[in-house]
Amino acid sequence: MTVDPRFYAPLGALTLGQVAEMTGAPLDGDGELPVTGISSAGQAQPGDLVFLDGDGKSVPQISPNAAIFVTNEANLRHVPEGAPRLVVRFPRYAHAIAALAMYRPRHLDWTGDARIAPDAQVHETARVSPGAVIGPGAVIGEGSWIGPNTSIGPGVQIGRHCQIGANTSVFCALLGDHVTLLAGARIGENGFGVMAAPDGQRDAPHFGRVILQDHVTVGANTCIDRGVFEDTILGERTKIDNLCQIAHNVVFGRSVIMAAFGGISGSVRVGNQSMLGGRVGIADHVRVGEGVSLAASSGLFRNVEDGETWGGTPAKPLRQWMREVAWLQKQANPKKNS
Amino acid sequence: MTVDPRFYAPLGALTLGQVAEMTGAPLDGDGELPVTGISSAGQAQPGDLVFLDGDGKSVPQISPNAAIFVTNEANLRHVPEGAPRLVVRFPRYAHAIAALAMYRPRHLDWTGDARIAPDAQVHETARVSPGAVIGPGAVIGEGSWIGPNTSIGPGVQIGRHCQIGANTSVFCALLGDHVTLLAGARIGENGFGVMAAPDGQRDAPHFGRVILQDHVTVGANTCIDRGVFEDTILGERTKIDNLCQIAHNVVFGRSVIMAAFGGISGSVRVGNQSMLGGRVGIADHVRVGEGVSLAASSGLFRNVEDGETWGGTPAKPLRQWMREVAWLQKQANPKKNS
Amino acid sequence: MTVDPRFYAPLGALTLGQVAEMTGAPLDGDGELPVTGISSAGQAQPGDLVFLDGDGKSVPQISPNAAIFVTNEANLRHVPEGAPRLVVRFPRYAHAIAALAMYRPRHLDWTGDARIAPDAQVHETARVSPGAVIGPGAVIGEGSWIGPNTSIGPGVQIGRHCQIGANTSVFCALLGDHVTLLAGARIGENGFGVMAAPDGQRDAPHFGRVILQDHVTVGANTCIDRGVFEDTILGERTKIDNLCQIAHNVVFGRSVIMAAFGGISGSVRVGNQSMLGGRVGIADHVRVGEGVSLAASSGLFRNVEDGETWGGTPAKPLRQWMREVAWLQKQANPKKNS
Repeated sequence: MTVDPRFYAPLGALTLGQVAEMTGAPLDGDGELPVTGISSAGQAQPGDLVFLDGDGKSVPQISPNAAIFVTNEANLRHVPEGAPRLVVRFPRYAHAIAALAMYRPRHLDWTGDARIAPDAQVHETARVSPGAVIGPGAVIGEGSWIGPNTSIGPGVQIGRHCQIGANTSVFCALLGDHVTLLAGARIGENGFGVMAAPDGQRDAPHFGRVILQDHVTVGANTCIDRGVFEDTILGERTKIDNLCQIAHNVVFGRSVIMAAFGGISGSVRVGNQSMLGGRVGIADHVRVGEGVSLAASSGLFRNVEDGETWGGTPAKPLRQWMREVAWLQKQANPKKNS
Repeated sequence: MTVDPRFYAPLGALTLGQVAEMTGAPLDGDGELPVTGISSAGQAQPGDLVFLDGDGKSVPQISPNAAIFVTNEANLRHVPEGAPRLVVRFPRYAHAIAALAMYRPRHLDWTGDARIAPDAQVHETARVSPGAVIGPGAVIGEGSWIGPNTSIGPGVQIGRHCQIGANTSVFCALLGDHVTLLAGARIGENGFGVMAAPDGQRDAPHFGRVILQDHVTVGANTCIDRGVFEDTILGERTKIDNLCQIAHNVVFGRSVIMAAFGGISGSVRVGNQSMLGGRVGIADHVRVGEGVSLAASSGLFRNVEDGETWGGTPAKPLRQWMREVAWLQKQANPKKNS
Repeated sequence: MTVDPRFYAPLGALTLGQVAEMTGAPLDGDGELPVTGISSAGQAQPGDLVFLDGDGKSVPQISPNAAIFVTNEANLRHVPEGAPRLVVRFPRYAHAIAALAMYRPRHLDWTGDARIAPDAQVHETARVSPGAVIGPGAVIGEGSWIGPNTSIGPGVQIGRHCQIGANTSVFCALLGDHVTLLAGARIGENGFGVMAAPDGQRDAPHFGRVILQDHVTVGANTCIDRGVFEDTILGERTKIDNLCQIAHNVVFGRSVIMAAFGGISGSVRVGNQSMLGGRVGIADHVRVGEGVSLAASSGLFRNVEDGETWGGTPAKPLRQWMREVAWLQKQANPKKNS
């Protein structure tokens, strides 16, 4: 996936030799080979630098376009034959060094006193409350409202008839029409990813976006992180309550409903029309089908098929969970049930 | 209950004929009948438009004052004989259309560069930090402090000796004296309510308020939604920790204590001096008596009488829950207990 | 511990007679005795006023330096012989009255239109986004970024190469180098402490700080409260996800990882390299060793030794918890297992 230049300023391509030098890797291959982008191994475009990390025991997803690798010894066997590769001890970290040399998040250079950047495009019918700030290159559509003390980052696109509440922040994001963000929502922050580096653990930098389709609503103080390289996406008319957490690379379908304190880990998929009760948690990479219901307080660690209703922690089919709850109550309280 | 004009600008009364036209309902009754307000069926004042929605199987609460109805076929039998009614497929949505034609939230029109609106009343002893913005018609009482980058919405009333922390937002709310809001608290947002509409699900608009009585404290990043038509209320000296969620129409009594991550669903009642441990969740419409204790992590789905102590998910009397926990541990680990 | 004058303006020492007068306590001792500071009984410096409250049944921690006491009758027996003492019904409250007469939080007097206070020190290479405000005496180090609409309170020290996200607030805090705060983080608010007072419950005032060491990352909308008298501390490279709560006086070691919705109660200790899964809760004063893993959704009420892995609510060793889960599932669903 291509890094969106509206959010990340391209600093120019590198050569494999330059990447080797900045990461301290021995050069193996053509030092003049151009490195023109970055991505995950699974979503690479030609010219992208990708990485393989971990113990190498499972076969990673690798796009046929993936052509330039940073890897550790353990993953060397997964690198396609003949592909240029740099071998380092901390491939995730080495990749981050190269990525930050190629792209710089534009918000880190947003300075000055201009509340609305001169080159931001605010539609004449849009209303901007006092204290709101709008970054360079941002676009605010017809009839939209930007609440007081809200921050719209560089390059952010907000459609028509949106309501962006007070004290909200929106970065690295594209919003459709009729999108509502309640006060304090945090859209497009760097996701939570800890990578090993020579001097200890560091944050993995994120280069993706958040996409909120038409009629999406996001509750107060809810956080939706941007993707690592791809996007975090909420489908049309999906409605999220207050104080929820949606991690990087999550994709929700259309008309999903999620109640307060929902917590969705990285790369989860949730199908159309599913309903998540209060305080539901879902572990990373789990797939939830369409029309699924998860009872309040469920902690889900497994995939759920279309139309099912689950509950409990660890979550299981609702009937089974209810049977366990009832059975335990009966067994542990013999007098009441004699 | 009357919609408070400090927060919602009255756009003028409608006639039943106008409501029929804007909602596409066949007119049944006097088209010139004035529709002068909106409310829930249970709290109607004369002249209010109310709605009945759902499958009609349970008998809805209907005030004797309720006189003008939008309803679906399933609820027609609950409409008092002779009362004017509009029959539509999506009554909740039709009611919202009429409501938004009668009242407009004032914050959606709060624009301009004035940090403190010219007609806001800020007491001469109040202190306003840099970046704070105060909307038209708002009132800040003697000795109160408004933190930096905080947003006080149009018409909001803040009493004496209040401390409103940094980056906080307060809308559609009345605060007593000695009220403390810590940084990032979100007071008076639209509650979470999804209604069916012809084009898919939409947010139900809210026209109520938040009332925080004297000496109430609200923690950092905690959210308290305004009521749908009535108010969300916290009684005197009630203390709420950080990162809690209090939904629309909730009423807490005096001196309630709620620890972090507490989540209270719509229309819940909690009596005086009750104590809610960390991460307690309460399902909608549940009644909790006075002096009740709920253990940390309780998930409560049933009413609790005065003075009781409950725990677990689903919550039950604490002794019973503890007995189940201990019994399960013993049974499942026979060697340890032989 | 000494109250840090960068955050709390010293209003001058008191005499024991003045404290007696303002708290309504009968004077017992030398009325001219200088009271030069405040602290907890366990951490007193010479001249500090300390308090003993509660039922007096357990022996409180009392520093050999503790020399001037406010106490209730129940705790009189714990006051060292000969030490001056004031006996009151509400010692915690009386202590707070004296404390607030000696120290005033500087942010309560931060007013005016200056976005950056004239005496704040912002390094020439630091970047400050529109809408950010920086209080008197604050220091922003080399190469750091302060996001839009963010509030940096009086006296706050921010090191080099820090990234402070949008709409964040930082008070009463010292940050090292390479610290990252994501949008909406709330650093240094008053902690949650309810004390009895003659007119009902009140908030206990906090006079401590938050210390974030080098390379700490704090997620979006996460809250870290300042200490009561001592500090809340996160060690180097500790990484906290979004929407977490860390209460007063908590101390985390180095390279701790905590996922979203983690909730850490007052005075908890967590050792180096421990990993806390999503929605982990820890009760107050619990000690967690080094290299401990807590499974997602754990509710921990007991100390955990180095290197252990626990889960469940109430949390127990992971194997034991898993055994209980599996045993219950098997017993309650006999048909599936026959």
